[in-house]
Amino acid sequence: MRQLYVDAQYASPYAMSVFVALHEKGLPFEMHTVDLGADAHKAATLAGTLLTQRVPTLIEDDGFNLAESSAITEFLEDTAAGPALYPTSPRQRAHARQVQAWLRSDLMPIRVERPTEVIFFAQRRAPLSVEAEAAAQKLFSVADTLLHGHSDDLFGEWCLADLDLALMLNRLVMHGDPVPAHLAAYATRQWQRRSVREWLALPRPGLSLS
Amino acid sequence: MRQLYVDAQYASPYAMSVFVALHEKGLPFEMHTVDLGADAHKAATLAGTLLTQRVPTLIEDDGFNLAESSAITEFLEDTAAGPALYPTSPRQRAHARQVQAWLRSDLMPIRVERPTEVIFFAQRRAPLSVEAEAAAQKLFSVADTLLHGHSDDLFGEWCLADLDLALMLNRLVMHGDPVPAHLAAYATRQWQRRSVREWLALPRPGLSLS
Ligand SMILES: [Ca+2]
Ligand SMILES: [Ca+2]
Ligand SMILES: [Ca+2]
Ligand SMILES: [Ca+2]
Repeated sequence: MRQLYVDAQYASPYAMSVFVALHEKGLPFEMHTVDLGADAHKAATLAGTLLTQRVPTLIEDDGFNLAESSAITEFLEDTAAGPALYPTSPRQRAHARQVQAWLRSDLMPIRVERPTEVIFFAQRRAPLSVEAEAAAQKLFSVADTLLHGHSDDLFGEWCLADLDLALMLNRLVMHGDPVPAHLAAYATRQWQRRSVREWLALPRPGLSLS
Repeated sequence: MRQLYVDAQYASPYAMSVFVALHEKGLPFEMHTVDLGADAHKAATLAGTLLTQRVPTLIEDDGFNLAESSAITEFLEDTAAGPALYPTSPRQRAHARQVQAWLRSDLMPIRVERPTEVIFFAQRRAPLSVEAEAAAQKLFSVADTLLHGHSDDLFGEWCLADLDLALMLNRLVMHGDPVPAHLAAYATRQWQRRSVREWLALPRPGLSLS
């Protein structure tokens, strides 16, 4: 059986992306949690399991070992049948990859001030800083341009970039921060998707505040 | 003519990745620099050129606009003939993507204490902190595992992940920090590649210290 290593709190958007991809493809897997805070990932590395000490990591039946969420989901798309995770048009696929890479490397003030605990544990934080407000305006502007003409999905049909964009928006929507109505509606609809709800329904332990 | 927007100092490893990819593919392009420090990218955004205010951005003849280095190089691989930028085997390709994504999101202390100005402008910095030393040890350990059995290239034939890995190693090698000899030799050989030397040969202005 295919093995997926994820974070112990089920709070990593990158673990979520791979989990959703496996569900969309209908691929069976066993899931293991790694408590990054307890340095279990470093111990596991010593055992040769996690080369770069990162989750998510996917391990195939024969031991093939792969980390980094975007590398894993591209691999699933390349090798597994089932519904598409990315657009088939090269240009739309390129824009989906752009969205994924951008949301993994920009908008840091939002990611710091609205961590995913806001989404998955209903945590509440202080009002957004000036820097986070500026990042939010950039997010809204780009999302508005990207969604032009597609109210349900970025590229007319769902793809993994929709999950990433909805997650970034939901850091604000679910915290109660102001979000343009059509973008909030998009993010809320995306959260209804079956594969997303499977992730949301995972039994989360209470957050340790150590 | 295809247009490539890069940083004004020619110091971005992500701009370099796209530049090298275009050279490897033998694709003609015009290059434009954007002075991120002077906020010219924000002005350009207003003109609709840089959606996410990021370089590198590639613009095709008909206006198709694409940012994020990995999205651009995957797009070039998907759509352009010429030498391969990624391994053709799905598993090796997955590992190449893993290396690229990992080096873009981990090892932050190395990236902060050994910025690419160390490579492209021969700058010298203070000795590595304890955190950067630990990141360097992780880099060496992973590089050693990845290069097992391949002294020239990660996957037997050159790919873009070799550029990324060599660049990360060269932050240390070219600064004079201790690096295991076989890894230093790998990084130094990678720096001899024609497409890499084209980037190194770009006429760099003196660094403004404003
Ligand atoms: Ca990841
Ligand atoms: Ca649709
Ligand atoms: Ca980039
Ligand atoms: Ca070779």
